Amino acid sequence: MNDSADRRVRVQDDAGTEAFGAQLETWRLRMENALAARLPQPSRVPARLHEAMRYSVLGGGKRIRPALLFATARAVGLSEDQVEAAACAIELVHVYSLVHDDLPAMDNDDLRRGRPTCHKAYDEATALLVGDALQPLAFQLLASDPALPASPVIRLRLIDMLAQAIGTFGMAGGQAIDLAVQGTRLDIGQVEDMHARKTGAVISASVLMAAECAPPLETNLYSALTRFATAVGLAFQIQDDLLDVTGDVSTLGKATGADSERAKPTHPAIIGITASQQRVRLLHSQAINALAPFGDRADSLRSLAHWLLSRQY
Amino acid sequence: MNDSADRRVRVQDDAGTEAFGAQLETWRLRMENALAARLPQPSRVPARLHEAMRYSVLGGGKRIRPALLFATARAVGLSEDQVEAAACAIELVHVYSLVHDDLPAMDNDDLRRGRPTCHKAYDEATALLVGDALQPLAFQLLASDPALPASPVIRLRLIDMLAQAIGTFGMAGGQAIDLAVQGTRLDIGQVEDMHARKTGAVISASVLMAAECAPPLETNLYSALTRFATAVGLAFQIQDDLLDVTGDVSTLGKATGADSERAKPTHPAIIGITASQQRVRLLHSQAINALAPFGDRADSLRSLAHWLLSRQY
Repeated sequence: MNDSADRRVRVQDDAGTEAFGAQLETWRLRMENALAARLPQPSRVPARLHEAMRYSVLGGGKRIRPALLFATARAVGLSEDQVEAAACAIELVHVYSLVHDDLPAMDNDDLRRGRPTCHKAYDEATALLVGDALQPLAFQLLASDPALPASPVIRLRLIDMLAQAIGTFGMAGGQAIDLAVQGTRLDIGQVEDMHARKTGAVISASVLMAAECAPPLETNLYSALTRFATAVGLAFQIQDDLLDVTGDVSTLGKATGADSERAKPTHPAIIGITASQQRVRLLHSQAINALAPFGDRADSLRSLAHWLLSRQY
Repeated sequence: MNDSADRRVRVQDDAGTEAFGAQLETWRLRMENALAARLPQPSRVPARLHEAMRYSVLGGGKRIRPALLFATARAVGLSEDQVEAAACAIELVHVYSLVHDDLPAMDNDDLRRGRPTCHKAYDEATALLVGDALQPLAFQLLASDPALPASPVIRLRLIDMLAQAIGTFGMAGGQAIDLAVQGTRLDIGQVEDMHARKTGAVISASVLMAAECAPPLETNLYSALTRFATAVGLAFQIQDDLLDVTGDVSTLGKATGADSERAKPTHPAIIGITASQQRVRLLHSQAINALAPFGDRADSLRSLAHWLLSRQY
């Protein structure tokens, strides 16, 4: 990290962390209500599936991807209201991916967000259907949610972006690569390619879908957001893998040490903890530098990047 | 079935069955090419996932839902070209549902279309991801496939219809009810409600999405298609359940007797084989009667209904 970027990060650190924590909490509560209103009620048939969907989506989660949409909205001059439905769509596909990834056929995890995973609290078939049903709900919100003030052409663009972000060249593809490479040796470039799909694609979509809701951005602003999102997405995944090695189960709300147990190729496993931490700092600096053309309007994105990349859970 | 409807069906039977078989084969080959062109190539990473998607989608299947789109297209004055992309979207979600339904956590089937099911040919995690990745591909086609000559507003309507047809008030919900009621006693009305979601919703969507691609239909024609699709969808499911009891494994390409083994409430189980066959004939007659306002233009839909409801596999 060069000195000026390092200084900027530190200043941000001192000035804004506490206030930004309150902002994140406000956004989290907003999302809790927004998601609760859009999920089918358990009073309607099939009750158990609707309950399991609400169990999986509500009552937990840091809502990092929605926060990326809200912070990007600020940078491009939109209100939270204008991106809330898109934030719900992103969070629903994120939760679907967690529910399916936790299944015995995948990562076989018992604990998620400090509670039993969906298939533990319900059963495997229900968890499968929860994921299967969250996907179309996400696309339905983008197609027809009345709170999304987007033209039909923009709605289609959002649907296309989400579909690509979670398809075989995005999240599902990254997950497939992750399964294929367990126990094999990858170089760090291959690991970063896998992460770009597995988590990076949806992180980037969170930023770029929010930007898409605004009047067309100048090309340099759009590419600045793309660079920001790419750097943050990768740094976020490395930070996640670092926490799997160095984190505490009670703080994380999920098991640690799982990656090395499964011989997953991660940054800490390949280049070590110290070099991984350095990589996170470099990407952090790149992300902050990318935001320069936005001036003060990107302060929320800066604070969010800082919060994400220094988190301990 | 009343006499005139019965006569009409018989006339249809004598006149068109062989020619319509050739039509179905033409449509099937068209779909094979259309799907192959839209599925990601195994030469691209992740190769194994792309292979498994192609294994599951291509090389088998009667393409009944695409045939419903093509036959409806004729009834409303569209060419096959104009609904081909939508037919692909429907078939992709249908295949995703088969791949997930076959998983051990659901129906645990080893055989599908005369070949090992996806999780048998590959593995459970891959089968999970195949289904997860086919869904966004379907929505992506509706959002941006260049072969779909639909306005943005129509594309959004198609996305909304598909999302509803496969969500908790459609296919995924029907599957959840199916799981919940195994071994319980249902009355025939509850069974038909379950079928309306589990298979009926996507069958109806096949017909109504094709209709949606045409210039707005007169209300009576739209409601005629709705009645046709509802009757055919239910009759198709009863026929399927009858074949599970009376069919032959080598003709069907999948195991028989599975429903009674799982104590699934079906028409044959609740009202018996003869009454179930009568119910199919009544629904068949209702479907044919519903098409009256279309005159000759609906001949393909009539032939298709006849073929579907007299099939032995």
